[in-house]
This record gives sequence, C-alpha cells and structure tokens, in this order.
Amino acid sequence: MLELKQALQGISSVILDMDGVIYRGSKPIKGAAKAIAFLRNSGKRVIFLTNNSESSRSSYVKKLMRMGVPASEDDVITSGQVAADYIKKREPSAKVFVIGGKGLVEEIRRAGLKIVKPEKATHVVVGIDQSLTYEKLKQGFRALLAGAEFIATNPDTIYPAEDGLSPGAGAILGALERSSGRKPDVVIGKPSPLIIRFVLQILGAKSKETAIIGDQIETDIKAGKRMGLLTILVLSGVSKAGDIKKVKGTKNAPDFVIDSLEEVIG
Amino acid sequence: MLELKQALQGISSVILDMDGVIYRGSKPIKGAAKAIAFLRNSGKRVIFLTNNSESSRSSYVKKLMRMGVPASEDDVITSGQVAADYIKKREPSAKVFVIGGKGLVEEIRRAGLKIVKPEKATHVVVGIDQSLTYEKLKQGFRALLAGAEFIATNPDTIYPAEDGLSPGAGAILGALERSSGRKPDVVIGKPSPLIIRFVLQILGAKSKETAIIGDQIETDIKAGKRMGLLTILVLSGVSKAGDIKKVKGTKNAPDFVIDSLEEVIG
Repeated sequence: MLELKQALQGISSVILDMDGVIYRGSKPIKGAAKAIAFLRNSGKRVIFLTNNSESSRSSYVKKLMRMGVPASEDDVITSGQVAADYIKKREPSAKVFVIGGKGLVEEIRRAGLKIVKPEKATHVVVGIDQSLTYEKLKQGFRALLAGAEFIATNPDTIYPAEDGLSPGAGAILGALERSSGRKPDVVIGKPSPLIIRFVLQILGAKSKETAIIGDQIETDIKAGKRMGLLTILVLSGVSKAGDIKKVKGTKNAPDFVIDSLEEVIG
Repeated sequence: MLELKQALQGISSVILDMDGVIYRGSKPIKGAAKAIAFLRNSGKRVIFLTNNSESSRSSYVKKLMRMGVPASEDDVITSGQVAADYIKKREPSAKVFVIGGKGLVEEIRRAGLKIVKPEKATHVVVGIDQSLTYEKLKQGFRALLAGAEFIATNPDTIYPAEDGLSPGAGAILGALERSSGRKPDVVIGKPSPLIIRFVLQILGAKSKETAIIGDQIETDIKAGKRMGLLTILVLSGVSKAGDIKKVKGTKNAPDFVIDSLEEVIG
C-alpha cells in the first residue's frame, strides 16, 4: 500500500490502541510486535492508549512485554490517568469517590487526589468495575444526587474480558444516568477529544504529524477525526469490513483500512 | 369533596398503591387505615398493588398489618407475581434467570417455573436487586446476547429504601440495555396496562367500576388512564401540587387530587 507508506512518512508519533490491535484478550495478534518495532525503527514515537481504566500503566507494560513489545510506563496512557489529571488540574483539592478498578484508584492517588467516602465526595469517577455491587451503585447515585461532579473514564458499552464479552463502563454509567437523571459532566476516553489532546501534549506533537491506529470506528477513528489525526482502522478487532461501508463518505470514514497492524511495514 | 364522593359511588373495586399512600418507608400515613376500613365498609373490594418485586406478598401482608390494615395474600399483587404469571401462561416450560430480590424468586417458583443458570435461560427477569453484583450483571447481559426473552418487572428509576432514595429496577435495566443494545421485550409494572389487566381479571371487575389511587402520575395515574379506570392522585408521596400543573389538560391528568387517602371518607 504505497499511499499508506507515503502518509506515514509525514508522521512522527503513532497512537496505538491495544486490544484488537496488538492482542485479543491474552493472545498476541500476528505481526503486531514486528510492526511496532518497524515504526520505532522509522523514528516514530509510539504511544499505547486505552479507554480501559481498570488496570494500571504498570500492568499494561507487563502485558505488552508478554506480547513481545518492549514498553515503559511513559509509553502507556489510560483513561484513568487522564481522568485523574483532568480533575487535578481543575480542582487540586477534589475529594473523589471511585467506582472502578484498582488501576483507576491507583491513578487517582498518584495524581495526589484524595479518595473519600461517597458522603464527602466532590467528584464521582466511574470506570469499569468488576467488583461493582448494588451498595456501590447506591453510594454513587447518592453522591450524584447531592451534586458531585460526574466524571466518566470511558463510554464503552462492552468490555472484552478474558472470559468473553462483558458489560463495559458504559453499562455502569447507564445505571447511574437512569437513576440520577444526570449525564456525565465529562467523558474522558475516546471518542472524546480530551484524551487525544492529553496525548498530544505529552508527546509535544502536532495533530497533523500524529496517527491513531485502532480497531473501533466509534472510538478510535472518531476521536482521531475530531482532532485532525491521520486515522488507520485495523480489521483485527471489533470492526469488520461491513462496518466501513456504513461510514463511507462521512466525516468518520478512516483514512486507511488495513487487515492488521503488520501492514504498516508495507 | 362532593364530586369525589359521587364518583366513588359507582366504584366496586379500588386498587391502592402502597408506598406514599398507606405508608412512607416504615411510617404509616395518618388516616390511611381508617380510609381503607371506610372503603371496605362501603362494600368495595380493596387490592394493594405494588410495582416493587423485591418482597413477597406475605411480607406485604405483614407490613400492612403493622400499619393497622388487615389484609390477606389474596389482597396483595406485586409486579413479580404478574411477571411470573405472564411467563407461565405463554411458556410453561420457560427457564428463568432472575436478577431480583427474594420476593421475585419466590413468585417465579410459586408459578411453577424453573430457575436456572444464565447459560440455560430462555428468559431473563429483572427487578430491583439489592444484592446485585457485576458478576450477576454480566450473566444477565450474556443471556440477553444469547437471545433470552427480556422481562422487566417494573421501570421505576428510583427505589424508596428504608435508608433513603436508592437506584430502582430501572437503573439495573439501564445497565443491561446500554450493554446489550436491547430493550425489555415486556415491562410488567405500572404504567404498563398489563399489570392492571391482571388485577381486573383477578377481581372480575370492569374498568369503569374500578378506581386506582396512587402517589405517582407517571406510574399509577398513567396506568389507570390507559385502562380507563377512575384515577385519584394523593399528595402524600412522590407527587406534589406542582406536578399536577404539568399534566393539566393532558390525557394523564388525574380525575381527582387529594392530600391523602383519608379524604375519601369525605
């Protein structure tokens, strides 16, 4: 694909989605590690970006290593980390009630924010929480009724867990929205431009020199398009060839479509 | 209120909502027990109807007794009971996965239906479940993805628990709908006409001889209006005087508005 090769020549930074691009669940996708090495050898900075706030950056580093992809924590950005940064910058003394996984709790603490009981919360931060209970849902609901700011790490309705498809952070948001009558005040993860802006700032990169490669039109491609990045859809994850037809000619049509990451080697 | 007195003269059966009409949480509403005795002494059959599927009929009988209202199980109808009847009539060999409280489980069993693990479910029945976990949500989600029929006992977004407002069955539905991309195939509780039709059949009563008295326009009054009952709104629960203005002149305007049930004594 000559055109893709040419387009990538003007790119200094590549934002890579992980699940469906580098691996599916616990299995590496063929050629992905080689393709990442190729991009790096071409002088591009590679950032691994996930909407999932459940795990910490360090656990993603370990997972990437297992996939044959060397990485450090500075190469990984999660929606949990960006949510923590977002709150910290606007309200350094925020008191946060978390509905989410260990990784989200870790990022909130790392940002120097206080984690509190729901009665004292100024912010409710919601991500995927595999230890969700009715009690926790009730606590979040009550904090929202009492006026706490409502922050969603990501809107994904489905979560690709090791043992199969599962309800995503969006499901928990659905429960809180329906009961409280409120929508999140802010959604951090893709397709929100917020998370992309954060990455560009970290990279010190311009939109037009940056590419995003992901497997989902509704999140990866949409976010990239909103921010003027080069957008590349891979068909090794959620999106299938049929999905491209639906967005053809619209503002969410990806610039390039490839079967898997390996094709960037050209 | 002469007009209400006259309207009630043509009524043989009265459907009474409980929370907000007879009691609020664990406290009886003044004059309610006396009013119920008055209705019964006037020769009317009184049915206690709740959208809540968490508790069993026997526990409502006990609660009514504590409020000074004599009642038997035949006087109480819950959305759980009607959900069980609905399934049993259409598919006697249905295999049911329940997200709900003890009362719902009891009603499903009482109807002679089989309760199964999610992998084997032909039906997923959802009510308020105070012991909800992410695992249970995931199981329901997967059964829905696999094509099980989706039955909601009631759509209430908020649940008036003893310790304060809490997320209702509608919140759990919100999580399942958002993740599965499906809407319930049927909603049993008010404002659905289904539950009212069930009560009328039990009573052997006609719509025009039946009154519904409740504290919520969106459920009690709407259900009554849809089925052509005499509708009476009490202001001793959720609805306030301001809410009536919003529906004035619409098809959901109650026929009568009273401060509390005591006023039926006239």
